[in-house]
Amino acid sequence: MNDAGMVLCLGKDQVPRYWYNVLADLPIEIPEPRRDPQHARNSPAGRGGTVLRPQLPLSLYRQSTGRTRFIPIPDPVRAEYQRWRPTPMYRAARLEQALGTPAHIYFKHEGTSPSGSHKLNTALAQVYYYHRAGIREMVTGTGAGQWGGALAMSCRAYGMDCTVFMVRCSYEQKPYRGTLMRLNGARVLASPSTATETGREALHADPDSPGSLGLANAEAIEYASSASHARFSIGSGENHVLMHQTVIGEEALLQMASAGEFPDIVIGAMGAGSNFAGIAFPLYRVARQENRVTRLVAVESEACPKMTRGKYLMDHTDYSGVTPMVKMYTLGHKFSAYPIHAGGLRYHGAAPIVSAMYDNGLVEARSYGQVRVFESGTLFAKTEGIVPAPESAHAVACAIDEALAAREQGTPRVILFGLSGHGLLDLGAYEQYLAGEMKDVAPSDEEISQSLGHLI
Amino acid sequence: MNDAGMVLCLGKDQVPRYWYNVLADLPIEIPEPRRDPQHARNSPAGRGGTVLRPQLPLSLYRQSTGRTRFIPIPDPVRAEYQRWRPTPMYRAARLEQALGTPAHIYFKHEGTSPSGSHKLNTALAQVYYYHRAGIREMVTGTGAGQWGGALAMSCRAYGMDCTVFMVRCSYEQKPYRGTLMRLNGARVLASPSTATETGREALHADPDSPGSLGLANAEAIEYASSASHARFSIGSGENHVLMHQTVIGEEALLQMASAGEFPDIVIGAMGAGSNFAGIAFPLYRVARQENRVTRLVAVESEACPKMTRGKYLMDHTDYSGVTPMVKMYTLGHKFSAYPIHAGGLRYHGAAPIVSAMYDNGLVEARSYGQVRVFESGTLFAKTEGIVPAPESAHAVACAIDEALAAREQGTPRVILFGLSGHGLLDLGAYEQYLAGEMKDVAPSDEEISQSLGHLI
Repeated sequence: MNDAGMVLCLGKDQVPRYWYNVLADLPIEIPEPRRDPQHARNSPAGRGGTVLRPQLPLSLYRQSTGRTRFIPIPDPVRAEYQRWRPTPMYRAARLEQALGTPAHIYFKHEGTSPSGSHKLNTALAQVYYYHRAGIREMVTGTGAGQWGGALAMSCRAYGMDCTVFMVRCSYEQKPYRGTLMRLNGARVLASPSTATETGREALHADPDSPGSLGLANAEAIEYASSASHARFSIGSGENHVLMHQTVIGEEALLQMASAGEFPDIVIGAMGAGSNFAGIAFPLYRVARQENRVTRLVAVESEACPKMTRGKYLMDHTDYSGVTPMVKMYTLGHKFSAYPIHAGGLRYHGAAPIVSAMYDNGLVEARSYGQVRVFESGTLFAKTEGIVPAPESAHAVACAIDEALAAREQGTPRVILFGLSGHGLLDLGAYEQYLAGEMKDVAPSDEEISQSLGHLI
Repeated sequence: MNDAGMVLCLGKDQVPRYWYNVLADLPIEIPEPRRDPQHARNSPAGRGGTVLRPQLPLSLYRQSTGRTRFIPIPDPVRAEYQRWRPTPMYRAARLEQALGTPAHIYFKHEGTSPSGSHKLNTALAQVYYYHRAGIREMVTGTGAGQWGGALAMSCRAYGMDCTVFMVRCSYEQKPYRGTLMRLNGARVLASPSTATETGREALHADPDSPGSLGLANAEAIEYASSASHARFSIGSGENHVLMHQTVIGEEALLQMASAGEFPDIVIGAMGAGSNFAGIAFPLYRVARQENRVTRLVAVESEACPKMTRGKYLMDHTDYSGVTPMVKMYTLGHKFSAYPIHAGGLRYHGAAPIVSAMYDNGLVEARSYGQVRVFESGTLFAKTEGIVPAPESAHAVACAIDEALAAREQGTPRVILFGLSGHGLLDLGAYEQYLAGEMKDVAPSDEEISQSLGHLI
């Protein structure tokens, strides 16, 4: 290997033919979702007559609830994947040198997708199934905009309409994300918006609300319920969404094998969990099969510490409480994180599967403040030439810590992390960091208690 | 092929091992460069004592002047190329459908490079040779910033310093380009700057000067000449730079072959010429060998129409006239194009080789206004899911015209164009287009005559 690092590539024929369902291999039970009649009755969508229109096409519903280990990827979806997959894996040799570490650091670069992140893996799959089910418009909420952009691009590919409620603080921080969605024909609204009762209520309560993903999703649900040809689609958290992302980990397994190594630790940034699950679950399966000790670390933001400081209990996935309750690590569905540049990590809860694994000690969690995150992202850009999205830079920060720990202990360590997206539309945030104007923010214990109050 | 289009990929072992030197195959003579003592004496760098320090490491000088057909790519440079090359080629099936054309449209996607454009192909090569020659700092001028970003990234890879003079109108239109260079450790100055005598003179003449690439290069030359460890490097125009870009066309030949087609027309946006040459020259060689009729079309901006409205004569490549004169299609080296978003196409001259080919009818030229260009770029983004850089969108516009002509004539046509870079850092310009606020600009005949005045 020369010091330019190693790139591990696969052929087009090695794009996975199956998604992986971790439920087939988990030695634990995932609590069933349940309705919360009280909340549903009071929700705007509830008031509209329908609590929550049956959402999922049957195929997606089966993916979300089944225990089949491998689910075939439909040919048209795989053909779309082949436009950019397999994504490259790199050995970050220059970062290793800069850190003086004996650790080997690998990263899987999902930022090479046309939409700029891993989100396209599930967007294309979901839109494929909804399109087959005769749906003509997709409606969603998006945080930093990676999901909204991917959904807009997928809808365009299938000639469907797309409406995106984008969390206001991200909408303002990252104006180009909206442009990208509009270029793909989507309608983009800053959330809270005046287009829904949910949004108007939130604006009434706080005219300066920065918004939250739970709120944007609640708006999207209400909006979608007003048109029979429209459906609400979600970019993370749900079982089937996590499953669609496993193409990342399946490719990573082949790439690690071609490097002749297996990771001691797998790291992924943690919004609702699909990025983390996408790279971690297939590695979990093989580590378990082969009796290897491989740590799986989910990295969240200190501004939204649902795993490290939240509670494991039944909660809604949206702000209004129209969604069924699921058992998850949460800060409460009305929690609104302080604005941070990693808008994709501002979601209040952790996916039920990831939560259950964390509760059972199968997954670790760690949180980072954004100053440290951008410091890491900047070092990564300087050494590896790729600007990570702020979300992905959380994984970089953790990988650097692990590499430094390896140096301290003088022991080798194989680190694999997921670079979920590029940060080219986040350069304003990097500019702020370079100018020394970035600050850490985190909720107080009181704020968390208050947000969780009625749930405990 | 399904309607998702076709992606034509190559293995890592198919990254070219040789650059192609079109001089070996051209049936025409390229006039020799010559010094213009009068200008050199009066130039700031000239006043500093040295007219123009011997610039090129011997290897680059030989590449620029030799007639050897294939030049081996050094292993370390090829290893860097393999980090992202071969770049994918796509069949733009959805664009074809939208146009209702019988034409087959292929594009080679150089926007997949870490720096976001084709510029990295020559930046890495040049920095490799300068680094081997003991140089510790590279200095350059950049238009839209694609070249500056690529050079900054390459310098970082070799641990060298980098100073970039960026044309002021682009510096202001595209602030994130500067951020990207700074993230890679470069020093970035808006040109005209106060850091050089050349810049101060230009600011004195016009305090609101939008700048030009010729001027930024003149500043870079003056700045570099003040330090023995520094060298001026150029991102296009020179023979060796065009040659480094031929990896694009060499890969394209393999990819077209795998699609079982050969282009009837090859289209590339035309700044100084390296993007155009990179895709066109290898295709020229094979078309000539095989007696095929393949048109090569260079697409320039109406705001900077050196080929379609300029003159073929001896001129300087920089604003100050410290560089040797070369015979080229030019608008005059003091020409300053109106600010357009395609900053990379604002250069006053066409590369000597491309100019000679144009003069001999081996190359065609066409110009487009930016409203039409962004209309085409937007249609491309909506159909193909990739936002083209404004420069690249010129090639898209021409490809669309050719596809529509094929529809008119009811005849098939195989079109290949170079998508030189992505437009993710140009989304502000697209936003302006979507808002209906974009305007066409072009120099008057008087302005061109005046700029060319003393040369004719």
